[in-house]
Amino acid sequence: MMEAPDGQPENKPPKIVTAAMLVIGNEILSGRTRDANMYYLAGRLTELGIRLMEARIVPDNEAMIVAAVNDLRARYDYVFTSGGIGPTHDDITADCVAKAFGVGVGIQAEARRRLEAHYEPGMLNEARLRMARIPEGATLIDNPVSAAPGFRIGNVLVMAGVPAIFQAMVASVAPQLTGGDRLLSRTVIAQVPEGAVAQDLGALQQAYPDVDMGSYPAFRGGRASTAIVLRSTDKARLDAAAEAMHGIFRRFGGEPVENEIV
Amino acid sequence: MMEAPDGQPENKPPKIVTAAMLVIGNEILSGRTRDANMYYLAGRLTELGIRLMEARIVPDNEAMIVAAVNDLRARYDYVFTSGGIGPTHDDITADCVAKAFGVGVGIQAEARRRLEAHYEPGMLNEARLRMARIPEGATLIDNPVSAAPGFRIGNVLVMAGVPAIFQAMVASVAPQLTGGDRLLSRTVIAQVPEGAVAQDLGALQQAYPDVDMGSYPAFRGGRASTAIVLRSTDKARLDAAAEAMHGIFRRFGGEPVENEIV
Repeated sequence: MMEAPDGQPENKPPKIVTAAMLVIGNEILSGRTRDANMYYLAGRLTELGIRLMEARIVPDNEAMIVAAVNDLRARYDYVFTSGGIGPTHDDITADCVAKAFGVGVGIQAEARRRLEAHYEPGMLNEARLRMARIPEGATLIDNPVSAAPGFRIGNVLVMAGVPAIFQAMVASVAPQLTGGDRLLSRTVIAQVPEGAVAQDLGALQQAYPDVDMGSYPAFRGGRASTAIVLRSTDKARLDAAAEAMHGIFRRFGGEPVENEIV
Repeated sequence: MMEAPDGQPENKPPKIVTAAMLVIGNEILSGRTRDANMYYLAGRLTELGIRLMEARIVPDNEAMIVAAVNDLRARYDYVFTSGGIGPTHDDITADCVAKAFGVGVGIQAEARRRLEAHYEPGMLNEARLRMARIPEGATLIDNPVSAAPGFRIGNVLVMAGVPAIFQAMVASVAPQLTGGDRLLSRTVIAQVPEGAVAQDLGALQQAYPDVDMGSYPAFRGGRASTAIVLRSTDKARLDAAAEAMHGIFRRFGGEPVENEIV
């Protein structure tokens, strides 16, 4: 924490950087595929000091993609999309993002060069060349797996849906992202039902409005346990709240631990 | 298919029933928990002839939950929510749904009776009793796992986030849901890169606008494969398109199969 001139710690509000994710693809909504990219991105953004505030999953539908891109980019610092940038007719993300920004879209020279370098001579057909269609004004996101790039336009980062490629693209862009104050967290777990501690937890939350507290019940081997996740940008406040939570669990006969497995 | 009086099959448009899912919970967005409920619901709805058109994941934030409930319930036949109906301070879904509908919320007699029957004498404390808070005019959704009910108000079905309870609640309400014509599907897979077949697939899609075609590339053991998912309410059209897709794969040297593992 910064010190003010008189030596007192300054009560600077935390720097908060936000993001949303837009998952594009019929296969997630039909139940064919279980999305893996949002879970991955959520974890990486937390490490980068960026708060994932919302996620949406939409089908390969132009109107829905355009509306979601425009809604989310107006409300969050970053928007990450996954899916719909391959060579087939159902890959419409680049066109939709261009439409959302009101710009043109066409074969971009550098994207084409990367595809030409990747494919054997004669294999870069018309369909594959579609993967070089990039909205005007966008910059490329590297794809070390299969060459066809993602792109960034404004605060929207467009990436592939195949998890190995999505993850490689996130690694490519991570150094360009500006994070805010990291949300630190502690997780206190005990074999106490959440209904037993709920009232004291509510009072603790009121005493620490600057520490976000979530309660997650679980049942393992027929025994109820509760995980309390505490999050704050202020380590001293976080630690004080976590220690108080240990005390609450103990009062209800629990032996709190701080890891994810009880 | 119904027959018209002159013996010709009637070209009745398919009956389409739609749904959205709203996942409520900070833990999904922070990367702590990987959502399991959407994937489960997507599969069950497909079986029931209901099309999951969109999903949203929002934090435990009143304004965001209210806005999402009102947006989604106006646009889809059903809205399914998961999460936020437990006994702790961060369980605000019932209050938010009541606010979205502009109705009151309070302890409901039947919900209270179920909790009283479930807990040992003296264990139904004030926090647990919060789980009997149900919006006015809502009907209960049974919870055979831990008694505390979900509820349905209008076209919104509110369920728990713990996957075992969520799944039990979906089973409870499934008989009350009205499905439309089932979307039949076939998946044709071959060890051919999607960029090779993309152009012919696009032409096939144009010839069968009533069959939805999605292309899903995968890399297994260093070899590229492509799964084409074809979906339609019309079995004859679906079968004709799937057979044509077999032909396309064969022309590119593939040996198409119809299961999920190549």
